[in-house]
Amino acid sequence: MASRTSSPLVHPDERELDLFVIMSALADPIRLSIVVTLGVHTEVPCGTFELPVAKSALSRHFRILRESGLIRQRDAGTRRVNALRREELGRRFPGLLDLVLKEGAGREVAVAGAD
Amino acid sequence: MASRTSSPLVHPDERELDLFVIMSALADPIRLSIVVTLGVHTEVPCGTFELPVAKSALSRHFRILRESGLIRQRDAGTRRVNALRREELGRRFPGLLDLVLKEGAGREVAVAGAD
Repeated sequence: MASRTSSPLVHPDERELDLFVIMSALADPIRLSIVVTLGVHTEVPCGTFELPVAKSALSRHFRILRESGLIRQRDAGTRRVNALRREELGRRFPGLLDLVLKEGAGREVAVAGAD
Repeated sequence: MASRTSSPLVHPDERELDLFVIMSALADPIRLSIVVTLGVHTEVPCGTFELPVAKSALSRHFRILRESGLIRQRDAGTRRVNALRREELGRRFPGLLDLVLKEGAGREVAVAGAD
C-alpha cells in the first residue's frame, strides 16, 4: 500500500489522543478486527489481513485507525506495516486497550504469511 | 416522555453488555453529553436536559443509550428519569466509565431545575 507518491504518514501526538475519537474508530467491526488482530501479531503489513473489504475501503480504515492514534504505520520497502500504539495508549487511557483486546477476542482475522 | 401507551422499557442484562455497542453509543456527541451530565447529576428526567435537539431525536438518543446498557430509565409519573448503570458497568468493564467521565469532563449540559 506504500508508494513513492504517498503523503507523509501523520500520527497524532500522545497528548492529542482523544478517547471518543478512539471509540468512534473502534465502533466499526472491520477496524475492530484489525485492532484485535494487531493484539495477536506484532507488526502486520496492510495487504496481508484477510478481510472481505476492497483495497480502497481498507486503506480508509487504516487511515482512520492511524489518525485516531490506535495504530502506528511505517513504510518498509513496498509494504506499509501496522502496529498498535500500546505504550502511548496505556499511558493516556490506562486499561482501555486491555479491555478492548479482551472483549474483542475471537474477532481476529487470518494474516497471510503469518505463523 | 413517559406515556400510558409506551412499550415496556427493555434493559440489557449485565451479562449481555457489549463493549463495542457501548463505544458506538458514546461516539455520538449528544449521547456523550447526556452520559457526562448523568455523571454529575444522579437522576435526570429526559425533558430537562438543555440540548439543541428535537424531542424525537432526543428520544432516539435515550433509547440507544438504554439499549447499550449505559443508562437505566424508569417512569416516575409523567416523567421518564435516567441514571447511569454505574455498578453493572463497573463490574463488566472496570475503569471504563471513570475514563469516559474523566475524558468527557466539560461536555456536561445544563439541566432545567437542577441546583
